[in-house]
Amino acid sequence: MTFKLITLGSNSALPAIDKYPSAHVLNIHEQFYLIDAGEGVQMQLKRYGISLLKINHIFISHLHGDHVYGLFGLIATMGLLGRKIPLNIYAPNPMREIMYNHFKYFESHLPYRVDIHIISDCEGNPVYSNQFLEVYAIPLEHTLPSFGFIFQEKAPERNIKKDCIQKYGLSLKEIILAKQGEDIVLSDGSVLENNELTYLPYHPRSFAYCSDTKYSDSVIRQIQGVNLLYHEATFLDCDRYLAEKTGHTTALQAAYIALYANVKQLVIGHFSLRYKENNHLFLEEALSVFKNTRLAQEGAVFDV
Amino acid sequence: MTFKLITLGSNSALPAIDKYPSAHVLNIHEQFYLIDAGEGVQMQLKRYGISLLKINHIFISHLHGDHVYGLFGLIATMGLLGRKIPLNIYAPNPMREIMYNHFKYFESHLPYRVDIHIISDCEGNPVYSNQFLEVYAIPLEHTLPSFGFIFQEKAPERNIKKDCIQKYGLSLKEIILAKQGEDIVLSDGSVLENNELTYLPYHPRSFAYCSDTKYSDSVIRQIQGVNLLYHEATFLDCDRYLAEKTGHTTALQAAYIALYANVKQLVIGHFSLRYKENNHLFLEEALSVFKNTRLAQEGAVFDV
Repeated sequence: MTFKLITLGSNSALPAIDKYPSAHVLNIHEQFYLIDAGEGVQMQLKRYGISLLKINHIFISHLHGDHVYGLFGLIATMGLLGRKIPLNIYAPNPMREIMYNHFKYFESHLPYRVDIHIISDCEGNPVYSNQFLEVYAIPLEHTLPSFGFIFQEKAPERNIKKDCIQKYGLSLKEIILAKQGEDIVLSDGSVLENNELTYLPYHPRSFAYCSDTKYSDSVIRQIQGVNLLYHEATFLDCDRYLAEKTGHTTALQAAYIALYANVKQLVIGHFSLRYKENNHLFLEEALSVFKNTRLAQEGAVFDV
Repeated sequence: MTFKLITLGSNSALPAIDKYPSAHVLNIHEQFYLIDAGEGVQMQLKRYGISLLKINHIFISHLHGDHVYGLFGLIATMGLLGRKIPLNIYAPNPMREIMYNHFKYFESHLPYRVDIHIISDCEGNPVYSNQFLEVYAIPLEHTLPSFGFIFQEKAPERNIKKDCIQKYGLSLKEIILAKQGEDIVLSDGSVLENNELTYLPYHPRSFAYCSDTKYSDSVIRQIQGVNLLYHEATFLDCDRYLAEKTGHTTALQAAYIALYANVKQLVIGHFSLRYKENNHLFLEEALSVFKNTRLAQEGAVFDV
């Protein structure tokens, strides 16, 4: 089952040529989730062959322009393409007022509904869930309310081992019970343990997105053990005081977060342009602490 | 003296790869004027080496997203770059309310002032003028209030023909009078006609920008004789009923407008993607009526 991250924008706020501000798409079981929507995100979706109309859920980390200014064009284009089904946007306050005001002046004939879901607390309830997936918001530490997101696959229903059906003469009812995780008691009173009869088709995977934020111990606790962590790394560690002051993280700090959180893979992005676009400097710095680090760059795909 | 148009975006509303929605820059005597600000305009300015901080005046034709959604990121970036001097935006209603609402939620620490100048009537007064230039707004015919712009160079001060100074023994006072267009009466009572003593360093040039609009006779009257006309050509003429219905122009109609308005050169843009990006079809259609037609395309420069 597909679970991959596609970088649409690796840049921070100042504009660059051929780099875009923050935007990522998650493909989970061929459902597409957009995380942040920097300016130009609709062009990037088109560039990488992702249908705008396949996106039904957009998660916005915080209300700085470089994470949200692409939303307006995207919403307009979805309307021009004839979208009918509602679009769901999960974002901090005051996103509802922002969109309410926006629709006073623009997109007066939008043919679909935009539902805003405000992220205000993070008390353990998912902000979104479906049959396969739960999405949790976690508080980050930035210069205004900012949230990370954890995309956690639910444990899938167990599959029956085909050879067991004939071997033990399982009935349909017993097969259903076994797939639900039950042990099976045979007519002779013997017990077949569930894990002898079934297997997990895949192990539930998880992805955490943390941008924008400064280094945070509480984040480390909340993202423990995720398969893939995207973490912002706006600065190099020589500028860690500037990072602290502006609510950002250095590449070295991001690597320590990955290390302490025991994640399997780290992707860093949201790079400042002050280092003359020498993004390998970010990579070198992070690799010195956490070996399985990769750079976000436009079009890059990361299997979770 | 420089007077040239640079296309930043030739696309209409639906997103394309490597094409951007409406945005043009005019370089007039090394002053830069932005006309429309589609999404991604700040990236395009960077791509073509135009300093964002050199733009002090932005003219917005109408309040459809593909002409204005790049404004928000541009304003934010100008702030990050430390802009201090006011930015002037000329746009139809309700631009002031839009920006007022925008600043309630975004760019709370913008270090410069944004002055909104509402274009509401077009009764002959320029919406902007300086020492060299007057900018007039003209009403277009679109699905909401839309304005074209005419950038008209003022007649420059006449230069004195250097050889005349010695030949006629002109005094400083006489030179100043001659440069102001006066004839000079010599001590013997004879009259030197001004055009014998002076010349125009350049002939005042003019540029007209018409987007978005359907074919309009009144526009033809108002743009008579401009040196360069940019006119939208969203559709091919096979779709002229759709053009009429959606308040747009076909390439053929744009060419007739150029012909009837006796302009010297026509640039067409704002192309619909429905023709599979075969922009030569627009050019062929326009050339059949008006020979001096060129296509707007990203990065193209047109001398006025």
